[in-house]
Amino acid sequence: MKTNIQSTLVTCLAGSLLMCLALIQPLQAEEGMWTFDNFPSKAVAAKYGFTPSQPWLDHVRAASLRIAGGCSASFISPQGLVMTNHHCVVECVEQLSTPQQNLVETGFSAKTIAEERKCPAFELDQLVQIRDVTADIQGVLAGKAGDEANKALHAKEAELQQSCGSDASVRCDVVSLYHGGVYDLYRYKRYTDVRLVFAPEFTVAQFGGDPDNFNFPRFDFDIGLLRAYEGDKPAASPEFLRWGVNGSKDGDLVFVSGNPGGTSRELTVSQLAFARDTAFPLEMPELAEYRGQLEQFITRGPEQARAAREDLFFVENDFKASFGRQQALLDTQFFGGKQQEEQKLRAAVAADPKLAPFASAWDEIAQIQRVRGQLFTRRVSLGSYFFQTGLLGYAVTLVRAAAERTKPNGERLPEYTDQSLVNVQQELTAPIPIHKDLEELNLTLLFTVVRRDLGADDSFVRKMLGAESPEQLAHRLVSGTHLEDAKVREGLYAGGQGAVAASADPMIRFAASINEDRLALRKDYEARVEAPTRAAAERIANARFAVYGTSVDPDATFTARLSYGTVKGFENAEGRFVDPYTTIGGLFERTTGASPYALPQTWLTAKASLDLKLPMNLSTTNDIIGGNSGSPVIDRDGNVVGLIFDGNIFSLGGDYGYDAAKNRAVAVDSRALLEGLQKVYHLDRIVGEIQAGRR
Amino acid sequence: MKTNIQSTLVTCLAGSLLMCLALIQPLQAEEGMWTFDNFPSKAVAAKYGFTPSQPWLDHVRAASLRIAGGCSASFISPQGLVMTNHHCVVECVEQLSTPQQNLVETGFSAKTIAEERKCPAFELDQLVQIRDVTADIQGVLAGKAGDEANKALHAKEAELQQSCGSDASVRCDVVSLYHGGVYDLYRYKRYTDVRLVFAPEFTVAQFGGDPDNFNFPRFDFDIGLLRAYEGDKPAASPEFLRWGVNGSKDGDLVFVSGNPGGTSRELTVSQLAFARDTAFPLEMPELAEYRGQLEQFITRGPEQARAAREDLFFVENDFKASFGRQQALLDTQFFGGKQQEEQKLRAAVAADPKLAPFASAWDEIAQIQRVRGQLFTRRVSLGSYFFQTGLLGYAVTLVRAAAERTKPNGERLPEYTDQSLVNVQQELTAPIPIHKDLEELNLTLLFTVVRRDLGADDSFVRKMLGAESPEQLAHRLVSGTHLEDAKVREGLYAGGQGAVAASADPMIRFAASINEDRLALRKDYEARVEAPTRAAAERIANARFAVYGTSVDPDATFTARLSYGTVKGFENAEGRFVDPYTTIGGLFERTTGASPYALPQTWLTAKASLDLKLPMNLSTTNDIIGGNSGSPVIDRDGNVVGLIFDGNIFSLGGDYGYDAAKNRAVAVDSRALLEGLQKVYHLDRIVGEIQAGRR
Repeated sequence: MKTNIQSTLVTCLAGSLLMCLALIQPLQAEEGMWTFDNFPSKAVAAKYGFTPSQPWLDHVRAASLRIAGGCSASFISPQGLVMTNHHCVVECVEQLSTPQQNLVETGFSAKTIAEERKCPAFELDQLVQIRDVTADIQGVLAGKAGDEANKALHAKEAELQQSCGSDASVRCDVVSLYHGGVYDLYRYKRYTDVRLVFAPEFTVAQFGGDPDNFNFPRFDFDIGLLRAYEGDKPAASPEFLRWGVNGSKDGDLVFVSGNPGGTSRELTVSQLAFARDTAFPLEMPELAEYRGQLEQFITRGPEQARAAREDLFFVENDFKASFGRQQALLDTQFFGGKQQEEQKLRAAVAADPKLAPFASAWDEIAQIQRVRGQLFTRRVSLGSYFFQTGLLGYAVTLVRAAAERTKPNGERLPEYTDQSLVNVQQELTAPIPIHKDLEELNLTLLFTVVRRDLGADDSFVRKMLGAESPEQLAHRLVSGTHLEDAKVREGLYAGGQGAVAASADPMIRFAASINEDRLALRKDYEARVEAPTRAAAERIANARFAVYGTSVDPDATFTARLSYGTVKGFENAEGRFVDPYTTIGGLFERTTGASPYALPQTWLTAKASLDLKLPMNLSTTNDIIGGNSGSPVIDRDGNVVGLIFDGNIFSLGGDYGYDAAKNRAVAVDSRALLEGLQKVYHLDRIVGEIQAGRR
Repeated sequence: MKTNIQSTLVTCLAGSLLMCLALIQPLQAEEGMWTFDNFPSKAVAAKYGFTPSQPWLDHVRAASLRIAGGCSASFISPQGLVMTNHHCVVECVEQLSTPQQNLVETGFSAKTIAEERKCPAFELDQLVQIRDVTADIQGVLAGKAGDEANKALHAKEAELQQSCGSDASVRCDVVSLYHGGVYDLYRYKRYTDVRLVFAPEFTVAQFGGDPDNFNFPRFDFDIGLLRAYEGDKPAASPEFLRWGVNGSKDGDLVFVSGNPGGTSRELTVSQLAFARDTAFPLEMPELAEYRGQLEQFITRGPEQARAAREDLFFVENDFKASFGRQQALLDTQFFGGKQQEEQKLRAAVAADPKLAPFASAWDEIAQIQRVRGQLFTRRVSLGSYFFQTGLLGYAVTLVRAAAERTKPNGERLPEYTDQSLVNVQQELTAPIPIHKDLEELNLTLLFTVVRRDLGADDSFVRKMLGAESPEQLAHRLVSGTHLEDAKVREGLYAGGQGAVAASADPMIRFAASINEDRLALRKDYEARVEAPTRAAAERIANARFAVYGTSVDPDATFTARLSYGTVKGFENAEGRFVDPYTTIGGLFERTTGASPYALPQTWLTAKASLDLKLPMNLSTTNDIIGGNSGSPVIDRDGNVVGLIFDGNIFSLGGDYGYDAAKNRAVAVDSRALLEGLQKVYHLDRIVGEIQAGRR
């Protein structure tokens, strides 16, 4: 199973940053986003002389949290205190702001427990159990294809969810690992009363902004503190991470526990080529156009800036990350490595008669890419994010939820099973401020882009627009709807199909008018692309197990993973070695006074009291990816030594492969966190709570 | 030399729109943007029984015009009346508008000759002579490389220009054809007093807007009329195109005389791969971001819309055209065809010992792409359009012109030779309205993107921004400069180096501060990329001449070309046959009342009087590309039957290859033009002038 790393490295010549990643099979040193039930403790022990024990793993898992919106977090006190990134709580901070009080700009500190403020729509999930349900799922899928397979899968998933308990404080997800090679049922304890404790000013949390994003050296104070509540009281969290007394040092073994959102390392070459040649060329300019619109929108005035700054931040981040991924695929040597890797596995399959049933899977996936290509532009258009968010998102959800709730649980769309409806209802009823001018911008762009991509004469486009222009339609819907009122949404949800059918709200009527077309396309795409891809990918996963064994981490799936690595610098693109630590003093040196290199007054005032030599941010070799934001960095004692918030520029190709030489995780150092909370924000209450557990 | 078209067609299987283009060597039927001194009259005669004679060709050439800004046009009366597209004169229309009178929106008609209004910066060029100077140029290039070759080329070009006459009414350009295989000296008569006679409302000129752009069926009234003046009187234009009495019909032989801007059909596969994998992925999102900014900007108010609508139109057009070109290169079958084509030529070279000196040229160009890749992002950043336009463009020009004018003519940058300075001076002194908020948008984006692409720590970026943010720098420069005043520019130009050095204008100081860095990079790029590429491309051109002969049209170079073809429909992407003519009635049927499908009141009022059955737009097989906008479509008698304004969606890959089955030029029918001028705009004066020459 193992190959000689040295021998494959000789084919790695100079010139390409990412070229070596994929040549080494099955894994590079320290590569891996490991599930908690398959952690390579022996490999860690062999290399570092420390064996993460089962209790150690169980403790770390229980102290780790997932933020349903797409981040990671951890308990850092026994009273439900939660640490994550500022950029993971900024949506809540924005929602709690008003035209009179822009908390994104000023930051927020709850001086007393009474001042902790509920985030309108926030969910924290704590993983409590993993159960293998591969046989259950593969059993119902056997012999089925296309839509039939999808229906069987959804029914089984709904049944497994249901068997987990119907309590709203329990969440169960069927998790597909290795693209269908393994299915696990993940059971979570779910916290839905989550309150904001602390958020610094945006400018110091995101110091360096877009230019410094995905770069290192770095100087960000990207922390947000929350608290989980139960029964209107701070939740008891006996499993929490203690604060390390000494922090970390260069070369230290460190772990990152979090929820990496997704990787594509197991995809076939034809799927990667599809991403490179079809998906990125279509999607990158559309993302850039939205970015351009938001960039202009926020210059209109402080209210517009307040409304859209957070969206712009995420669009910038998404663009930069996607551009890096695209560049990795465009690197012919990197792509060649993926091709070699695939050829090697296919050769091994071809050489073993027992593996013959798997041999055709790659060609099947290549064939599916042609179908996918035919449907792709329409799928992207009709599946646009803008149909699923904001006022139109509410309308679509209300229309669909009303219809789906009339069906048996197992026959519904997966996002409307009884368990999922807990979230649906929470999101519909959360009193989130709506910025109607931003809504109008979003919908105008949506309608414009759909018409552009599908053509003015397309039947869906004609149904969508009628005789109106995108601007007119967006304006009519946004100005006429009352869905910005959470009570109206609650009423329509409670009223079900009758209420939705009787509603004259233009947004509801519009969502209803395009609902069937959108669902039909989705069903077609799932049947003709997703189902056969899943079936073929399952065979490839089994082929990989047969050839390389099962000590391989699965592609990330926004579920709990643990990675190990060390504090370590790297050589940058200009060939200069970059130290793994920056200092608080470096933050002040980088400050120009102009955005995004301006510091808030709190930091300028506190400067004299700060220990400028303390580490500010650090880089480690941990294998992470988006979704890991907010993950704790912990030492071998399980103590917090940092807070992940980014990766370096070389980490962007990590979607497709990990490069131990260059790929770095980027974290806020625990010493800077404490120094800032104490001397800049004077959060004695919280510092005391954290330090009570310090060791 | 010739290959059998039938035999190569059998390799063209279904599936790809553009796949067949490149398999046929050397040319498909009707492919070709021919120079007037190498027109394939015999081939036309053989196919259509009509031989364009030398007098016929000379007449058409002399009646054809080039608009220096990037369009084509023609004389259509002996009194200097010029026909082109609305989108070729819209810049002038915008410049003549005021906050009180938005001529882009209302249109413009000069009811009398006295009402014809001078376009502030407009130049029409009439080609009067072509002289082969290949020996002169190749002589001075022989044995030289890199910067030395560039200097020798520029000096020789300056000398040849100068030898042509120093009269400001003469313009001479050295034109490189076949990427250096042939050099010609083109001598033009230059008209710089050009006045606006007629422009319809934007909404009917660009009916269907971006969604319908590059599509057919189409219904645009995309015409603009100008008049060339000499000595403050209408210029005499004895060589003009007469108006055809009967228009055209399906299948008719038609010619298009114009100035196609540029094609890339002779590029090597490594150059095409560079465009596909490096240039498009970087440039498309940047263009899309600018589009998004302009889309938002124009929603701010009528003044912003007036300022930016034209820019947005061109950005949309550029984006759609570039996206089509990118898609052609991403089509693996199309790209495979280009690879086959190259392999075939290389095999022929390899098989003939006499051609041995040419054999390494392709590999040399492939090697150059690596150097190009290293320099490319910096070249794109520092060579950005925004450094060359608007207020900063003025400043850069003033700084450079002052320095260059101190040098001997042959040692200057090519854009500052004595002949070029005529244009430089005209552009600097033209009283063009400046929209400062749009300038600020442009510069903020420029500085942001340069920092994004090169990194915040890059030395050029640090020099450019100092401690300011992109927004701050743009605001300081734009609000502080006085370069919007043509008199100020004129004074600085007249004052030369002393005046520029003494100027405290922040835009001048900024342009001066970054000038050396930008020039140094340009020189490096030209020496290490352009010079060796030119040398290798010249050898490839000679190899192609040796293998295929010289009856091949050169890549387009925004110089006078003539193409032939027929009025013909095509099969669209859904497999439905599209008739080559639309009707005026169809325009009204497509009208929804909402932008971009709204008609101006003039057309709605005139509807009852119009012959709705008359052809509105038509499609032909002529091989054209951007730059051909405004070209006359003429019949075998040399009479006007249409006015080119676009191509269909399949024409977008035409940059890399022509597909006779699908590629179509799109024109306004001459009958609709006359009907509209007469019955919608009541332009009796002009209609009479046109009809006086009708036959």
